[in-house]
Parts: sequence; C-alpha cells; structure tokens
Amino acid sequence: MSEAERLGRRGFLASAATAGAVALTTTAGAAEPPAPASGAKPPDASTKAGAIGAKKLEEVLRVAREKLYPRCRVCPECDGQACAGEVPGLGGIGSGASFRNNVTALRRLTLKLRTLHDVSRPDTKVTLFGRALEFPVLCAALGGTTYNMGAKMSEEDFIEASLGGAKSVGTLGLVADGTEDPLATYQIRLKAIARHGGIAVIKPRAQQDIVERIRLVEEAGALAVAVDVDSAGRAARAAKLGQVIEPKTRKQLAELVRATKLPFIVKGIMTRDEARIAADAGAAGIVVSNHGGRVLDHTPGTAEVLAAIADDLGGKVVILADGGVRTGYDALKLLALGAQVVLVGRPIVRGAHGGGPEGVGVVLSSIRSQLVEAMTLTGTASVRAVERGILS
Amino acid sequence: MSEAERLGRRGFLASAATAGAVALTTTAGAAEPPAPASGAKPPDASTKAGAIGAKKLEEVLRVAREKLYPRCRVCPECDGQACAGEVPGLGGIGSGASFRNNVTALRRLTLKLRTLHDVSRPDTKVTLFGRALEFPVLCAALGGTTYNMGAKMSEEDFIEASLGGAKSVGTLGLVADGTEDPLATYQIRLKAIARHGGIAVIKPRAQQDIVERIRLVEEAGALAVAVDVDSAGRAARAAKLGQVIEPKTRKQLAELVRATKLPFIVKGIMTRDEARIAADAGAAGIVVSNHGGRVLDHTPGTAEVLAAIADDLGGKVVILADGGVRTGYDALKLLALGAQVVLVGRPIVRGAHGGGPEGVGVVLSSIRSQLVEAMTLTGTASVRAVERGILS
Amino acid sequence: MSEAERLGRRGFLASAATAGAVALTTTAGAAEPPAPASGAKPPDASTKAGAIGAKKLEEVLRVAREKLYPRCRVCPECDGQACAGEVPGLGGIGSGASFRNNVTALRRLTLKLRTLHDVSRPDTKVTLFGRALEFPVLCAALGGTTYNMGAKMSEEDFIEASLGGAKSVGTLGLVADGTEDPLATYQIRLKAIARHGGIAVIKPRAQQDIVERIRLVEEAGALAVAVDVDSAGRAARAAKLGQVIEPKTRKQLAELVRATKLPFIVKGIMTRDEARIAADAGAAGIVVSNHGGRVLDHTPGTAEVLAAIADDLGGKVVILADGGVRTGYDALKLLALGAQVVLVGRPIVRGAHGGGPEGVGVVLSSIRSQLVEAMTLTGTASVRAVERGILS
Amino acid sequence: MSEAERLGRRGFLASAATAGAVALTTTAGAAEPPAPASGAKPPDASTKAGAIGAKKLEEVLRVAREKLYPRCRVCPECDGQACAGEVPGLGGIGSGASFRNNVTALRRLTLKLRTLHDVSRPDTKVTLFGRALEFPVLCAALGGTTYNMGAKMSEEDFIEASLGGAKSVGTLGLVADGTEDPLATYQIRLKAIARHGGIAVIKPRAQQDIVERIRLVEEAGALAVAVDVDSAGRAARAAKLGQVIEPKTRKQLAELVRATKLPFIVKGIMTRDEARIAADAGAAGIVVSNHGGRVLDHTPGTAEVLAAIADDLGGKVVILADGGVRTGYDALKLLALGAQVVLVGRPIVRGAHGGGPEGVGVVLSSIRSQLVEAMTLTGTASVRAVERGILS
Repeated sequence: MSEAERLGRRGFLASAATAGAVALTTTAGAAEPPAPASGAKPPDASTKAGAIGAKKLEEVLRVAREKLYPRCRVCPECDGQACAGEVPGLGGIGSGASFRNNVTALRRLTLKLRTLHDVSRPDTKVTLFGRALEFPVLCAALGGTTYNMGAKMSEEDFIEASLGGAKSVGTLGLVADGTEDPLATYQIRLKAIARHGGIAVIKPRAQQDIVERIRLVEEAGALAVAVDVDSAGRAARAAKLGQVIEPKTRKQLAELVRATKLPFIVKGIMTRDEARIAADAGAAGIVVSNHGGRVLDHTPGTAEVLAAIADDLGGKVVILADGGVRTGYDALKLLALGAQVVLVGRPIVRGAHGGGPEGVGVVLSSIRSQLVEAMTLTGTASVRAVERGILS
Repeated sequence: MSEAERLGRRGFLASAATAGAVALTTTAGAAEPPAPASGAKPPDASTKAGAIGAKKLEEVLRVAREKLYPRCRVCPECDGQACAGEVPGLGGIGSGASFRNNVTALRRLTLKLRTLHDVSRPDTKVTLFGRALEFPVLCAALGGTTYNMGAKMSEEDFIEASLGGAKSVGTLGLVADGTEDPLATYQIRLKAIARHGGIAVIKPRAQQDIVERIRLVEEAGALAVAVDVDSAGRAARAAKLGQVIEPKTRKQLAELVRATKLPFIVKGIMTRDEARIAADAGAAGIVVSNHGGRVLDHTPGTAEVLAAIADDLGGKVVILADGGVRTGYDALKLLALGAQVVLVGRPIVRGAHGGGPEGVGVVLSSIRSQLVEAMTLTGTASVRAVERGILS
Repeated sequence: MSEAERLGRRGFLASAATAGAVALTTTAGAAEPPAPASGAKPPDASTKAGAIGAKKLEEVLRVAREKLYPRCRVCPECDGQACAGEVPGLGGIGSGASFRNNVTALRRLTLKLRTLHDVSRPDTKVTLFGRALEFPVLCAALGGTTYNMGAKMSEEDFIEASLGGAKSVGTLGLVADGTEDPLATYQIRLKAIARHGGIAVIKPRAQQDIVERIRLVEEAGALAVAVDVDSAGRAARAAKLGQVIEPKTRKQLAELVRATKLPFIVKGIMTRDEARIAADAGAAGIVVSNHGGRVLDHTPGTAEVLAAIADDLGGKVVILADGGVRTGYDALKLLALGAQVVLVGRPIVRGAHGGGPEGVGVVLSSIRSQLVEAMTLTGTASVRAVERGILS
Repeated sequence: MSEAERLGRRGFLASAATAGAVALTTTAGAAEPPAPASGAKPPDASTKAGAIGAKKLEEVLRVAREKLYPRCRVCPECDGQACAGEVPGLGGIGSGASFRNNVTALRRLTLKLRTLHDVSRPDTKVTLFGRALEFPVLCAALGGTTYNMGAKMSEEDFIEASLGGAKSVGTLGLVADGTEDPLATYQIRLKAIARHGGIAVIKPRAQQDIVERIRLVEEAGALAVAVDVDSAGRAARAAKLGQVIEPKTRKQLAELVRATKLPFIVKGIMTRDEARIAADAGAAGIVVSNHGGRVLDHTPGTAEVLAAIADDLGGKVVILADGGVRTGYDALKLLALGAQVVLVGRPIVRGAHGGGPEGVGVVLSSIRSQLVEAMTLTGTASVRAVERGILS
C-alpha cells in the first residue's frame, strides 16, 4: 500500500495546515503585535504599533502547530471540520455541527465598507464591571491541558500564559472549572487571577459546592464569578465521579446571586427565555455561548441568536458572547449584534502553546489590529456604540 | 502509474473512514454502553451507566468496518455519499439523493440549548401498542444479509442480533419481508419475534398472500403488523419472479385492517394525503419513511414532511418515523416533529456485524445516552411530550 | 516530482469515474434493458423486461468510457463539472455554469412518494405530431463526432446509432445541423431520418438557406423541422466561414412557418416572451432549451424556467424540453413542469459510443424503466397527464 | 514520507491550474484576439476578428502561470480560493471572503437567453468623460509588481503593458498610487498616461498631498483623477512610514473636487449613503468597489450592492464598478446592474505577465468577444442601454 492510500482526510488537513502557514504568515505580517507590557498598565496603542515584539504571529502558530498536533491541527481556518467529534480534544461534540455553526453564522454576516467619514482613530476602550479594558476581547475559560490539549503544558503554565498574556495587552481572561479536575487545579487558576485579574467560572455543581467555590473566587480578588450552566449535559458522567452537575432553576440562580457581592454571570445562554430568567434572577451578566459547540450537538451558532437576545434584554445586563471568534472582524460582528465584550477560546490555546504569555499577547494584539482596521473601514468610532447597521 | 492515481473517491472515503475512527472512538468514549441484560426486563438506566459492558462502540465499529467493507464503508458520517446508487447494497437508489435528503433534512434542524430548568433526569420511557419501552428507538426492518450486506452473517444470526440486542436494552425491532427471500427466511425472522418480541413487516403482495402472512405473524406473537407500501416500485422485478407487488388502495388497506386483530401499520408514508388514507382505512399506525431512500430517487427527507403529517393527523394514529437517524439528537428531532417512536436502520447493521446482540445493544445504548443528554440540555422532561419549540 | 503531484483535478475525476463504475454497474443491474427490436414496431414493455438483451448498461458505459476519454470522462454523475469550458467537446461553455444549472435545477426538485392508489401499470405512451411513441423521451440533436467527441465514430454511424437505437425502443430522435459541417454531412443525417423517422434541426441561417434545407428535410420524410435559434451567438464565427447565422424576428419566424407544411419547432426558448413570439409566429412546438449550456454562459437551468413558460402558453403549442436529463426521474420532473416530451443528449453520446444502436437502446430503456418506477411511486397513471403536484 | 503527503491544498490547486489549461485553451479558441493596433485610433471590430494576432490567450496564460507562480496560480477559475489571505500578493485580505463574495455575487446572477429579435450586431461603444471607447471595459489600477506580483516585471513595463494594451484595443486603464511606493514610481505611471491616456488614482493622503499629486496628474493629461478612499484602513501602516492615510469627509471631498478641473472620481463605494455623499460633494463619478476584496474582510460582493446604489443615484454621476470581473458575461452583468463602465484587475496582471501589451490586448479582446456574444444572446443592442431585465 502506498503512502497516498494512507492519506485520509485528517492527514490531508494536516498537510493543508502546513501549506496554509503561508497564508497565516501573510496575515501575520499585516498584524501589529505589540511588545509585551511589563506592568499592569496597558501600553498605549500607538506606541505598540511601532515597537513590534520579537515574537510574531507566524512563529507562534508554527510552534503551536508542532506542539498541538494531532490534538489541534492549527488549521489555517479554525472551523471545526478537522476536529469534529473530538471531545475530549478541541473539537465540537458529536458531528461537530455546533462548532461549525458558530463559524458559519459569523461568516454569513458581511460588513458594510464605509469610507466617507472622520473616524480615523477608532476608540477600542471599554469598561467591564468597573474595570477599564484596552479592547473588548477576553480570553475564554479554557482548561484540560492534558485531556484536551495533549499534555504539552501544565495547567499552571497555561493559565499564566492566558491571563498574563491578556493583561500584557490591557485585557483579561476567564478561568475554567473542570468536572474531572481536582480542587488543587482550580486553586492554581485562582492564583493566576490574583496575579493578573480575571473572572472565575464554576461548574453547575450542587448549590453548596458552588457557594464554597464562590468564597475562593472572592478571596482571589476576581472581577466577577460565572456559572456555566451549559455544562449540565454532563450530569451522568459527573455522577460516576460522585459529583453533582445539574441544570439550574431561576430560584437556584437567585440564591447564588444573593450569595456573593461579586457580579454574577450566567454562561451558556442561547435563547431569549433563558436570558430573561437569568436577568430576573439578578444576574449582572450573561455569556451568549454554546460552550464552543462542545456540549450539545446541532445547536445554532451564537451569532444566530445573539441579536434577538440583546434586543430583548434591552441593556439590563452585560452581554458577553463567544463562539467562533477568530479575528477582529468576528469580534466587531458580535459587538454589532449586541455584545459588549467577546471571548476568544481556541486562538488562545494556540497562542499559549506557541509562545506562552507573549504568544497570547501576539494573538490578542492581532485581533485588536484587525478590530481597529474594521472599525475604521465601517466608520465605527467606538466599541461602546457599534451600530447594527454596519452588518449587511 | 502511482498508487496515488489509483486513489479514486471511494478509496479516499475508505481511508477517510479509517482516519475517522479516531472521531468515532472519541464519541464512543462519551457514550455509556450498558451491560447486556440477561432477561426481558430492561435494566435500570442509572445502573447501566455504571456497569459499562465489555463491548465498546469503538470496537464494534472497528469490527463492523472490517466485515462490511466494501458493502458498507462504516463512514464516520453515515450520509449516503460513498454508497450512492448501491441497491442492492446499503446505499440510496440511483443518485442517492433520497438517502442524502434524509440526513440533510435532519442536519438542517438545530436544537435550542436550554439550561435554566429542573430537568436533570429526563424520562425516556414510552408505551407502544401497550408495550412499555425503555426509550423510543426501535430497530428498523432490515434484511438481505447476502445481497445487501456481503454474506458475513446468516439471516438468522442477524435477526437474533437485531431483536435480541434491542430487547437487551429494553426496546424492540421490526423484521423485514424480502421480495426475493423464500418463505423460510421470513419464518426464521418470525421465530426471533417469538423469542424477543417485535413487529413484522409484509411486502405489498397480493391481498390473499398478505393475509396468509398475517396469520404467521399472529402466531409468532408479534406486537403489530406492517405493510411497507413504499416497496410498490418493485412491481416489475417481482413480476419476473412470478410475484405480485402493488400499490394499495384505501379499500385494500381497509380489508387488511379487518383481517387481523393486531395493530395494523402502513409503512412508507411521505404525504398528508397518504397519511389520511391510511388513517381512514383504520390503520393503528403509520411509518413516515422513504424506505431509507432505497425505492424512489429524489424524494424529500422524512424530516421535511413529518411535521405537516403529524399536525394533520392530530394524534389519531401512532406515528413512527425513520430516515437518517444516527444519534439521539436525530431521534429527539423526529420526536419534536411529531413522531412517537423512531426507527434506526444502518447503525443496526453496523452493530450486528460489529458485535451481534451486544453490538446492537451498544449502538442503541449510545443513542439513548445522547438522547438523555439532549433532553437535559433542551429542558425536555419526557419523550412523551417533546415540544416542537426545541427546534430552531 | 511524484505522480501524486501531477494528479490534477481532471485526473482525479477520471479516476473517480473509474471508481464510480461500481455505482453505475449497480444501477445498471436495477434497470431492465430490453432486447433490441428487429422491426419498427416497438416491442411490448412487459415482454422486454423478461428478455433482457445481451448488452447491459454496465458494459455500454465501460466501452464508452474507454472510447470517449478525455473528451468525455463518462462521470458517474454527468453534471458538467469535469468538462467545464470544453466547447468544442461535450462541456458547457465558459465556466460551465449553464450546463451545471440544468443539472442543479433538476436536482433541487423532489418527488412526492405516493403509494396508496391503484396505479400499478403506468402508461408511458404519447403521440407527437401524430406519431405514436412508446415513451416521451427523444434523442436530442447531436453532432460533431470529430470536433466534439474525439473522432471515434463517423457521423453516419453515430446518427444510425442514435435514430436506429431510438426506433428500436419505440421512440425517435432529432438530427443536428453544424455550422462547420458540409452539406453532405447534413444529408447523411437526413438519410437516417428516412430510414428511422425523426425531426431535423436547421441552424438559424439566412432565410433562403433555411428554406432550401427545409426542402431536403421534407424529402427525407421528417416528422417535423426545427430551427435552433439559440445558436445565434455564433454569428461571428460563422461570418468567418462566409456563413450567416443570426437571431430571428417574429416576422422571419412566421415566414419560415409558412414555407413548409411540416410542424415547425423553435428550439432554444428560455423566456415567456420568446415562447409567445414563437407561438404568435405560428410555431407548432418549442423546445425549452439552453442548448445544453453550450451557447451562453450563466443561463438558468431549463427546469427553472419551464413551468412559467408552460403555464403561459396554456397548451397552444407542443412543449419539448431538454437540459440535464439523465434518468427517468429527471424526465418525469420535466413532464410535471409542463413538457410533453423530453430530449436527452449526453447519455445518447455514451450509448452510441458504448454500443451503437443497441447501446442507445439500452440507455433509453434504462430511462424508461426508471420512468415507470417513478410513475408507480408517485401515483402517475399516464405521461399525458402528469400532475405538477408530484413535485415538492 | 511520500510525495503524496506533502501534497497540500495549495499544491493541489497548482496542479489543478495546470490541468485547467485545457479548459482555458478551449475558451481561448472561442475568443478572437485582435492584432495589436499600431496607433491610438482603435481598429474596427470586424477587421480585428479576421486578423487574429500572433499571441493567443492560451499562450498568454501559459507564460503568466510560469512567471507568476506562486504569487498567482493563474487558476482556471480566478475566485480567490487558492490565494486567500495573500496581501501582499494577489489574494483577498484575511479569510479572502470579500474577494470570493465578488466572484460569488456575479456567479449567482443568471442571464436570460433571448433569441427572437434583430440584434445581430450589438454596439459596444461608450463615451467616458468625453472619450470614446470601443467597449466599456477598463484596466483597473494595479501596482506593486515586486511586493504583490513577485518581481517578474518592472513597474514601468507593467504599466506600459496595461495602458498600452488597453489602448491597442480601443480602451484605457487606471494607474495606482502605492502607499509604500516612492514618488518616482507614481511618475513612471503618469508617463504611461501621457503616452496612452488613462485615469490616475491617488491614495486618501493628507489633503495637501493629494492636491500636489492632482497637479502631476493634470500635467500628464489624464482623463480623470480618482481617490481610492477604501484604502483608509491602512492608516496604521502608513503612519509607520510617516504618511497620512485617512477616511475623507464630505467636506474634504468637496475641497478636492474644487481643486481640479478634471472629472473627480471617488473609488471604493459600497453603500448608498457613501454614494450620496460623493455625489453631494460634486464627484463626477464613483467606483463601486471593495478594492478587490483586499482592504476589509467579509464585505459583500460588489454585485450585491451595485443595483441599489445605481437606482439611488439615478444617473447623476458616472458609475464605474469592479469586483470579480473575469469575462464579458461578468461585464454585462455589472452593466445590467447599473454600471456604465467596468474595471478588470487580476486578468490584466495575467495578460501583462503573459505577453506585455499584446497579452493585455488578448485578454481584453477575449472579454470583448464574450460581451458581444452575450449581448447577441440576450438581445442587448447597445452597452449604453443594458436592461436590468436580462438578469434572472
């Protein structure tokens, strides 16, 4: 049998990914990765552009590809095709449709090119629960460096890369709570929050277990606390580990809201009804999310449901959103649909593996540069007031 | 000429299938195959989850792939692409469009992720013609282990795997009536019904021939009897064998209904008009089905026509449905469209060849696990009341 | 450089075609090719089914593939992908979009599976300009065995295969008029009409030139005469050969209608306006056709425009239609949209090269068998009254 | 590792391009490349058809492919797939979606085949700002032979090929202004305008810088001057080079309009609002363009927005349009949507590299021949009055 016959689809994609490096390199050349900041204070955007850091996106992706293959192929277009069904891993669950729908829903939206205006220096600054951010792009909650990412980094190094990298460019990140992780792992992540700031996520555990974790989160000085109710489908698996993971009622949510002074976020909202329940229960924010397509097969993409949810809530709670965000263009689309802040997930896995905190900074800066270009070319003066009408 | 040049599309798919085994394995890891039950009484779902049987889905599919190739490539996504036109075989007729439409119609439907509720232990039990089932997923009527499946199993072993496997997890199956099969083959299948329970299908033969077979079906103790009128296109081929296969009129159907006390099912309904005729003739149930895309090229997918038929019938007859069901997600979609019970076909062929009754049990349990997860994440408390509104 | 790297898309398709032979074979097995008839009188359909001829569709296609490659790759699905731009050749002009649109427009239409009725022996007989046909499928006008088909047959053998094969199964064909062909070639084709019956097409030449050819057509005893006005785009090329090819006005058409007692057909109608002009000018029939996608890039498929034209004409003229018809299912779809008769082109090229008159008979019989099955399964009693409502 | 495994998608496309040469050759045979004209006066179309020049499209493309690979793969279908993200290079920015949308939007439009009329010699002549053109197809503004095209031609040779080739077939071209080009390069291009006529584009620089360049443009005797405001997204990159590139307000545009007696064109309009601003500011013309998909990812295709803009302007300013035009069919579609003149870009890069001025002439003549055929077959008498209704 020849090598060719052994060349299945996944192998093809692996080689395509390598070939695609050219494209990524080119794109990288267009981005303006900043020098990593030394302190908590975000560097000024205009200086950053000049002082391009030593790590370039190209190099970050090359290293990431070497480390992550075959758990992640670092495809030129990260769209869930090659990794369909790889949970654990970095793919979407089952057929991978929910992951792909996230990407497809964003792709279908087009941006109006508008050039006759006076927006030459768009403003990307935003405030989230009182914290000023350089731009409204956060690291999503990610975990499982061993069972999802192939054991090339420790959880500690990964969360340092994620939160540290985010801080270096003036933003922040979320930390995850894994059903199968020991409490020690969660505590490692909270320490990173203590160092760099961030938001902590807690699984929809038994009420008392959540409250106990909320205390730890408060101690770490987190900006806010979230419960990712979309993890409720793993009830059966959790039960085998002697744990409780469950959907939450309005009453249970209200109880949790009352249990802390931190802003409380409900993560995993995909319908207007759930958004209203979360708001009624007193949540300060929601994350419109299908968990990266990793919990329920065949959900719509988040960009398909976001606008209706945002219109319905009418500004009562802060709306964060994720799902398929790869670029500043994607970020601008979600902002136009009604999000105040967007989360990126898989690109952060690449950045962390490709270059630690600097790698994450390079990835986030590239997204920021694209966001600035896209704002200029759509005549969007500020991320705090993105018109729905720039979408066509 | 190199090996590469000999690599045609089907070969490509064969290797893709092998590569895809990774994905299937991962998915398999997520399922919870139960230990095969020793008696007729279905084991409790919660115990099952703990006592994972020896046969895993991964192994079942690996064995099935080895046995069935090239009759079935056991593709990662069983969608009718690779086997288009393979009748006999396991493909769709002609261009394969009807088979593909079944899959595509299901794929287009998305599920609303709903997480704020109290459904943590969804109820999958259903009653069909007085018989209690653990979950509403049945083995479809399958036959032709030689001319369709490559002669790797006897008809007797196959039907034992199908009905025995179904019974081991608390459900049941249908048995087929092949135009070219001798009566002895049909009698072998009826014996399996006698052992495990089940529903018998009869081809749309001459009226008297059907009545004669109904007597055999009654003697076997079947739960119900069905005539698959969608086989009527094979009239010409049957004629060559000296047999009569024909469409049936309302009057003929009524005659058959009166000829038995068993619940009478009309299989192969794809329009509201036909559904009404069947109901008017006194049928206890219909199967919304295009015969797996194997009788008429270019029909719609069953998921495209089911809702209108169900709304029109308004609960007067039991609605069973099949067509492209591969997972518990697919099953939930057909239930939401109005079916009370769904049938799965090709996955059962895999299960039977990959592991006999246990293999079928593993396949069905995997579907059940997905159904439970999907119910939890859509807030569906019972399969007996699935809201249309969980589809988006 | 390896062989693999030289493997371009067309090579891939060539090998895919070879692999696809399996599928075609399977399909062939399902068809019922009749024995070639010895006389003009069409054999009875039921006898034909029993006496399967020596030449099977499988063998016909195998031989055709060997002879026609690379002019035609005899792809499993003849959809204009592999041969895009190959004019001369057998492809669609330019991007090939018009050819593909023909196929795609047919594919998008689905057939309602209807099984509860008394249509077990559908009637395929039709009368065209007074001539009784066994089934409403004709050979399209085809020519250029050298510049289009690779010089594997003489024009004489080809037209004998086409018209002789058609007659052997109870139908007939059209003959072409090539801009670059000498008059002698046209006369060869007319002799085949004299032997087997048929309809003669004339290019939209100068009025007097057309009238002269009409006389030859009349002498040959043709059933009707057609002018394919869709060839008008070749005016510039014809001019270089000292010929006139031109669009025709209503007045010019009327002049031609008056010049003969034969039924006059206008071929190449794609809009309601043109259909009305043809009817007003006194045409007995029109052919809804985009010339197989070979004259203007980017036209709609014929199945997209046929229904509106048929509804508008309201039965005033006979409607023939072509464009992407490969099977009896396609034929039934065009009949449902309003055609009285359909023409098939490229499958006839395969049949003729794969087996001469017998090969054409095998191809047409296969289409007829599919038509019968499709009529049975849609409850269509006669081709003379096909309901639009069988399409969904 | 075998060669096959190194065969990535881009390599595949490269070989597909080679295979595709057959298709292009065939198409080339259908075109009628004229002999290059010796003087400024365009040759008569009918003579041209007879005197087919020595350089054929086939040869031009073969040479272009050799020279341009891998910067441009000269794919059979130039649709932005293979070169996605290659900016610099010849691709679309980022995901390449804007480039692809241009092509896709044109592809979706179909042409009505109309054959019953008296249009046998359609008129392609048009007047642009007082200058008579043989046909309404211009060379787009192209530059960066080194950073975009791989340094196979000097800027001087390229602009001579473009403008000289255009003039030889009776039309003209635009010249570009690169952010990174020295002024000397711009002056080389203006000299070509002095020799052959043309329109000069200026980047949206600081107002005074634009006015200074306008003086140079006036001296060169350009027909008109344009500012490509769609370049405004490159503000950050320009800043690093110490340059100002910025969006323009209505007031700034009006200032520029007043600064010259040349017709002033605003290039890069994609919305009705921007078109109105340009018209209100006194622009003589606009170019509906997304800069070939090279400035903002995810814009619609120009053919999606053109009709609304044209209807809104109601003839007040001249509308030029570009975006994915490869053939005379594409050109006719944009004319039908409301453009008076269309620009072609990437095909000119092929023509210039494949055969200098003659190569460009061959490419443009091929487009003209297709335009004439398409006009004949849609019954379009003149490019000055193309009905919207020929689109379906």
